[in-house]
Order: sequence, then C-alpha cells, then structure tokens
Amino acid sequence: MQVRLVGGETETHPMAVYRTELNPADFLTRSAWIYPAKTAIVHGERRYTYRQFAERVNRFASRLRALGLQKHDRVAVLSPNTPAMLEATLAVPAAGGILTALNTRISTPEIGYILEHSGAPFLFVDHELEPMLTGLDLSGLTVVRIADTGLPDDPYEEFLAAGSPDAVASWLEDEYEPLALNYTSGTTGRPKGVLYHYRGAYLNALGEVIEAGLSRDSVYLWTLPMFHCNGWCFPWAVTAVGGTHVCLRRVDARRIWELFDSEGVTHYCGAPTVHITIVNCEYAHTLPRPVTGLIAAAPPSPTLMAQLRALNLHPVHVYGLTETYGPMTVCERRPEWAHLTDEEQATFLSRQGQAYIVGDLVRVVGEDMADVPRDGETLGEVVMRGNNVMLGYYKAPEATAEAFRGGWFHSGDLAVWHPNGDIELRDRSKDIIISGGENISTIEVEQALMAHPAVLECAVVAVPHPHWGERPKAFVTLKPGQSVTEGELIAFARSRIAHFKCPDTVAFGDLPKTSTGKVQKYVLREREWAGHAKRIN
Amino acid sequence: MQVRLVGGETETHPMAVYRTELNPADFLTRSAWIYPAKTAIVHGERRYTYRQFAERVNRFASRLRALGLQKHDRVAVLSPNTPAMLEATLAVPAAGGILTALNTRISTPEIGYILEHSGAPFLFVDHELEPMLTGLDLSGLTVVRIADTGLPDDPYEEFLAAGSPDAVASWLEDEYEPLALNYTSGTTGRPKGVLYHYRGAYLNALGEVIEAGLSRDSVYLWTLPMFHCNGWCFPWAVTAVGGTHVCLRRVDARRIWELFDSEGVTHYCGAPTVHITIVNCEYAHTLPRPVTGLIAAAPPSPTLMAQLRALNLHPVHVYGLTETYGPMTVCERRPEWAHLTDEEQATFLSRQGQAYIVGDLVRVVGEDMADVPRDGETLGEVVMRGNNVMLGYYKAPEATAEAFRGGWFHSGDLAVWHPNGDIELRDRSKDIIISGGENISTIEVEQALMAHPAVLECAVVAVPHPHWGERPKAFVTLKPGQSVTEGELIAFARSRIAHFKCPDTVAFGDLPKTSTGKVQKYVLREREWAGHAKRIN
Repeated sequence: MQVRLVGGETETHPMAVYRTELNPADFLTRSAWIYPAKTAIVHGERRYTYRQFAERVNRFASRLRALGLQKHDRVAVLSPNTPAMLEATLAVPAAGGILTALNTRISTPEIGYILEHSGAPFLFVDHELEPMLTGLDLSGLTVVRIADTGLPDDPYEEFLAAGSPDAVASWLEDEYEPLALNYTSGTTGRPKGVLYHYRGAYLNALGEVIEAGLSRDSVYLWTLPMFHCNGWCFPWAVTAVGGTHVCLRRVDARRIWELFDSEGVTHYCGAPTVHITIVNCEYAHTLPRPVTGLIAAAPPSPTLMAQLRALNLHPVHVYGLTETYGPMTVCERRPEWAHLTDEEQATFLSRQGQAYIVGDLVRVVGEDMADVPRDGETLGEVVMRGNNVMLGYYKAPEATAEAFRGGWFHSGDLAVWHPNGDIELRDRSKDIIISGGENISTIEVEQALMAHPAVLECAVVAVPHPHWGERPKAFVTLKPGQSVTEGELIAFARSRIAHFKCPDTVAFGDLPKTSTGKVQKYVLREREWAGHAKRIN
Repeated sequence: MQVRLVGGETETHPMAVYRTELNPADFLTRSAWIYPAKTAIVHGERRYTYRQFAERVNRFASRLRALGLQKHDRVAVLSPNTPAMLEATLAVPAAGGILTALNTRISTPEIGYILEHSGAPFLFVDHELEPMLTGLDLSGLTVVRIADTGLPDDPYEEFLAAGSPDAVASWLEDEYEPLALNYTSGTTGRPKGVLYHYRGAYLNALGEVIEAGLSRDSVYLWTLPMFHCNGWCFPWAVTAVGGTHVCLRRVDARRIWELFDSEGVTHYCGAPTVHITIVNCEYAHTLPRPVTGLIAAAPPSPTLMAQLRALNLHPVHVYGLTETYGPMTVCERRPEWAHLTDEEQATFLSRQGQAYIVGDLVRVVGEDMADVPRDGETLGEVVMRGNNVMLGYYKAPEATAEAFRGGWFHSGDLAVWHPNGDIELRDRSKDIIISGGENISTIEVEQALMAHPAVLECAVVAVPHPHWGERPKAFVTLKPGQSVTEGELIAFARSRIAHFKCPDTVAFGDLPKTSTGKVQKYVLREREWAGHAKRIN
C-alpha cells in the first residue's frame, strides 16, 4: 500500500505492519492471554476464568460458522444479562456475524418484526423468555435455547460443546464493517435498526474504560441490560482491562446490595430509575469503598445525586443515544466545584457535559445548523458527529439521511449550551411547554418536585389551557408509606422555581414507561390532549 | 462514500458523520473546553491553565502557518522539558507540520546531519542548548530562540504573541499521515528517522492513559525527555485527561523529591537509570501517597523494584522501541502473585510482559519467523505489528524493508517466551554470551550483581576466552561510600546464579552511556575485543 509520507513524496510500505483493524473482540484474546486464571464472569454460583471465557467464546464462534454462518449474518439473542448473553457479545463479532440483541421487554409482534427485518438466520433465546416467541413462525431459523444452568444438558452448553476451543480466523477486512444491529425501542412507529461499526465499538469501549475509571481490579455489576446499546460497550470495556463481570438476570434491589457486598462491586450503570430503585431499597447502606455508578438516559435530579453520594455511590452522569453507542457526553467533575455546596455541585453534575475523550465536541444548534449562543438559556438541538456515531439505520436510507442532515447526527434532544461549554438537556423535542410565550422546561419542573422527600418519581407534560396556551401538569409516584397533597406539592415547587413554571394540577399514581425504563410522556400527553387536533397550543 | 453494510448489500452514507481522523492534538481542544481554569502546566513559578495552554498552542500553530509552514514541513525543536517543548508537541501536529524533536545530548555534527536529512525549515532552540549549534549552517532556516523565561521579551514569547489565540483549521486528511519524525540515537551508523502516524500517536496516548492509570487528578512529572519517542506520547495522554504537566529542565534528584512533595506528583516515567538516581537520593523518603513510575528502556533489577516500592513508588514495567512509539508491552500485575514474596514478585515484574490494550500481542520468533516454544528458555527475536508501529524510516526504504521483513517489525531484541504468555528480554542481539556452547544472558548476570547492596550500576559483556570461547566480564559502579572487592562480588554472584554464568573478572568505575542513559555495552565490548577480527568466539 502506498502512503504519502511528506509533502508530495510517496513511499510504499507494507501497511499490515502498522495497521490492525480496530476490533473489540480482540480485547478478550489479550485478557485471556494475560489473565488466564483471573475471574472473568460471576453468575450466582457459577464462575468462569478468562481462559474459560475465551474458550467458550471461541466455541460459540466456531460453532456458528460450522452451522453455516456467513459474514455479516445477523445473530439474534433474546436474553437477560447471563453468561450466554455476554459470550454472544464477544463471539458474534469474533465470528464475523452481526449481533442483534433483542430488547427483552418488547412485544411478540415487535420481536417478529425485528426477526423479519434483520433477516437473522440464528436466534438464541433464554428459557424464561421463550414464551415471548409463542406464535411466531421460526421456520428457517436455527434456534438455540439457553437454559442458563451451565450444566452439560443445557442446550446452549451442548451448542458450545460441539464447537472448538481454538479461536477462529478473523474475517474482518475493514473496521467500518458492522458488528451489531440494535433496534431502538422507539416510542412511536416501527423500531429502527441502528448499525454499529467495529471502529466505534472499539473506541467507545476505550472511552468507557477511561471515563468510568476501569482497571484490572474492577468488578462490574450488570444492572444495565446488555441488549441496550450492547450494554453501552461495557462487555468489551470490562473485558479489555481484565475486570470481572457479575451477571444479573433482573434489577432486584436486595440482590444488588447483596452483590455489592459479597462480590466487592466497584462499578455499575443504569438509567435514573435503576439508581432510584437502588437508593430506596430497605437494604441500602453506606458502602466501605467508593462505587462508581454511571447514570444515563435522562437527567438525574440533584436530589438523587445527593442520595447516591450518601451511600458512597459516586454518580458519573453521561448522556447519549442508541445511535451513539450509548454515552457520547460526560459531565466531568471540575476542580473549581470542590468548594460549592452539595446541592450546587449536584446541579452542575446533572448537566450532560461534553464529549468523551474519544468523541468530537457536541454542539447545540438552531434550525439553520448555526451554534446557539453559549448563554445557558437559548434552546437548540443537540447534534453529534465522529467515531462514535452509527453507520446508519439498516434498510432505511431516508431515515438515515434525515438523521444525518447537514453532516451531523441529529439527536432530537433540546438543550441549552452553558458558557463553560457544557450542554444541558432541557427537553425532548416534543416535551417543551410554551406557556404565555415563555418556555418551560419540563425537566426543571420535575427536578423541583423530585426534591420533595415524599416523591419517588414524576413526569411533567404540557396540557392545553384556554388562556396561557399550555400549562404544566405533574404526574407523581410517591415513595411507599409517604403522603403529600396536591396543594402541598405545588406550594413546595413555588418555593423553588418561578411560579409560572409550577404545575397547576398534580395526579398521583404509577407512570407509564418504555421497556428501558424511560417515562413515556407521550402516553400522558396523548391522554391530556385527547380531542385536540394538535399537541401544541 | 459507499460502505458495504451487510452481505453483498451496499448503502451510501455521508461518512463524515461517523468518522473523525484520530488526532492527538484534538485532546487539547477538548480539555481546554472542559477544564479551562485547571492547571495544565507548572514550570517553576510559572503556571498555565488549560485555556492558556490551548491559546499558546493555537498561537504557535497559527504563527507557523503565517511564517510559511506547508503541510508536512518538518519543525525541529532542541529543548529540555519546558513549556515550549510541550507546546510544540501539540502545536506542530495541530498546524499540520511534522515535529522533529532533537535529542539534547547528541553532538553538533549529528544535529547538522538531522537538520539536513529532515529538511526542516523551522528550528526552535532553547537558550541553554544554543552552543550545540555553533558552526552549523542555519541559513534558510527560521530559527526561534527559547529563553524559557515566559516574559514578553523572550523571543519565543514574541513568536507566540504574533500568532492568533484561535485554533487553526486542521489540514489532516488521513490519520496515517506523519505527525512526528524521531531520530533514533543509535549506537552505530547514522541515526534513522522514525516516522510516526497520527493514528498510532492517538491510540498510544489512550494506551498510556489506561496502563498508567491517568485521570483528571493526575500530576505528571517530566523526568522522561520529551524528545524521546515524543515523551512516549505522554504529552498527549496527560493532556487528554486534563492532568497537570510539571516541567523539569534536567533530572536532578533533589529537585524531583521537592516536586514530588510540593506539586503532589502522581506519575513519572524513565529509564532504570532515572529510577536509580531517584531512589539513591539523600532526600528520598517514603511518600504519603502511591506514585506510579513507568520504567522502561532496559529490564529493571528485582533489587530496584523492591527499593522503589519501599518509597511508595509503584513501578509499572514497560518495554518498547522508538519504532513503536515507546512502550509496546507492559508487565501487568497478576492477582495470583499477591501471595508471593517481594523478591518473587519483583522477578515476575521485571519481565517485559505482553502488549498494551491498544496493541497486538507480540511474538518471539526464530530465524524462520515461527514462534519459539513458550518454555521460558528458548531465545528468539521479539517482533511486533499493529497500530503502534511506525510508518517506516524516513528516506530509507531498504532499512524499512529490512525492519519490516516477513510483515512484522523486528526489534533486534532477544527474549524468551514464558508459558504464561509474557516475554522476557534476555539480551540485545549482539549482547548474548555463548560460553562452552551454553547461552549466558548478560542481563541475568547483571541482575545478580545488582542485588549486592554496594552496587549502583553494572554492565556485563562477553570477553574472548581460549578455552570456553567467551566468558562474561563485569563492569561495576559502586554507590558513594561503599566498597566491595572483586572476589567478594564474584562469590556473591555464585551464591545466586549458576557458576558458569558468573563473571571471571570485575572492573570498577563509571559506565559509558548513550545520551538517553542506556549503557553502551558495545564500547566496553570493543575495548575488550580489540585486535580480534570477530566479536564472537
């Protein structure tokens, strides 16, 4: 291959010597080499060393190929956070397939749609989730059942046993080839298939190592679903440093606290709802060592931030989308915040911050793609580009072109840009409230309500109003055994934020949520705007 | 740009959205954005924040362009570890030039050769090193003197003042373009110009962040020359995490201990000779916090490893060459070593280990390029490949082809391969001793002698012997105020290693060294083999 060395001069060099395609599957090869005897996976009573982990992944990859896997064939997996799910996340890229991890909380028709749209010839399914396939036509698919026992008669173990413990030769020719196809849970319409490239997965994994502070001593608890942005690349990141994966079939707060103690957990990740569950557990206690908890998917409240710290859980606030391999930005701690009060620090830390070390700086732009002023007030859309952006939506060129218009990925999230460079989400595109011509951030209102000690969770949406156009309405879930009246809550909010921003009405009860734990504000909004032709006023 | 997505299908996507050329200069842009008020550089009484650091680098880059810099023009710098040297390491890649950092301990004719060979139109020179240029024809070069005062009348500061504080637009089109040209100090012949690419510099910087455990709280002391493999990429690594660079004009042990205390240093790097200087300083004391010291360039003795740990200095043993951006391998701590004695641990830790997370696994091969047995005994040559290998030698296609033969970079270092995958250097190609048909590793003999409490440094070379062919001879420097006889030292060695490996004679005195602190065994060997036609027997 020819490379231009200097000015117009050209020299010919054997590029293979100084180029290796970036491939996160290689991290396991190295860790198995260096830490063969170290514990790689803990799952209840089961434990696998790095040598065993690599051998199981090699068996997985070689068996897929023996069963006819062709390069870029999709391999669907429907499983909670088990060793099999983790092994698939390493083995499918190693084999040259495209991992299609299915959301475990979607409906049977949605699974059917994804299997058909992805064209996956392979499907691995956990025994507990098998009923979700009832009625689907699986003819033509190779289906492997995961009993998750680790015993020889587990069909998944039989599948592994027939493979070879030796690594397969890599088929990867270009680090921009796709290694994963992740369907977004989407609040409306059909799910879209987000294609990940090897380069992005590799660099994001390194980004997670650095931002989370992972090392060989790390013990990572799998509270985040591995189907969600491939567990934000942590299957590769934790493996890269030779850390220990602690599997977890479901988010059970008591079990989480047991594992914090028994396994010496140092890191975990999750949406705010996961952290809320953890801090409000009756078994919660201040840990003897600091534990880093990455928090994402929606801005955490200052109140939650303070609760976490009191337990020696140290939140790192990150933000991103499925299209950006999960987190793209992080709110880095600044030394000058050290002298601020806890509440002031928490307010800063609830910002989305700026790009990871491996990312390009993100921008907040207006309709014309020009930067909004960095004044902490002007709303714009968050746009991203760089090595941690997806290849595009699979078989959806129009949607890809729309998302990539102007040469940037459009997040659909609305934010302000602070003078210090941080971005701060103020709303999803459709969640903004405009009341008497003044913008109201539903998140700001939610954070004010969350500060009340009786409030577990809340969501604020716009409701139509004859005079003001729109007004905020709050939907609130209380903590068990707590009580507060509508009037008390509104008065509490008025003590913290501008009166015009406070809700006029409060409804108590459970909140509708997506399968990944995001509150479905559109469900609340649809209910409130029934009979209206538009959803703004 | 077209990308093949799945199987034979092809879709067209605007690649710019998901590709950014890897460029370590971008790390500064991000850190200045996120940590504008954080201390980036400490140099005596001078301190620069990240905002100032970035502005100075922007001024440097824009001024270079205003003075006529063309893409890939070489920019030579002859300077100790000052802010100017650090700024050049960020600014020249940002401007699109190729940084040519000159070894500060080479001779005037060597500098003349490098300036001519590199064709550098720019030369920055520190005031103290200006005499090294005496007699050279510098006509046609733009020369900027660095007074290193930071005051407005410093010519370097005048150079910066004429530039713009705003970032220049990047000219980088391909991450395989060259960003640095580093001439190896070489023990024989003309120095060779090692060309670094942006991709390698970026990935190595991330590798250093991870292996050294750098974070925003890191304070990095510049004991390693920045001209040496671009300070092993630490100018970019420390900047990436927003850590603090503490400059240091020379390795002065007392000053180092002062800075350890006054600046709260957390990390430093150096060859064993630097670490030896530090631990043997009269001001050495056990530090209240752990400090990580990367140690490279030659295998450290178990004795030195133990001395470091006693002071709360935690050695990370790394190995590489100029051609691999400095360190390519690291001896990772294994959990199963925890129960070993200090001496046993130190023996394991003195191995060169295996590749960094960002590197390909290194091999030890025979003449036929086949792996040697992983038996910890069979000698072979260390070969490397991957993203942290140079582009090649500048204007030296034959030397490049020779170094890259068989599709691997040949280190010229001889090692054994241990069953656990670690490599362990046993000698440089020409330093092996063959005595009565048995191989003797000079390093093994040196480590045995280093264990004696009176020995500061030593080197062992082969000398001709009528009966055995070759025999080892030791050259020893004693610690100040210590004494030991030749007979006592030989008896000491015989108590630790096989008798045939022990030296027959010991000479006391200073050792000849290269400008980077490596012992010049070839000088000792030449002296001993004077009058012989060959250097083996």
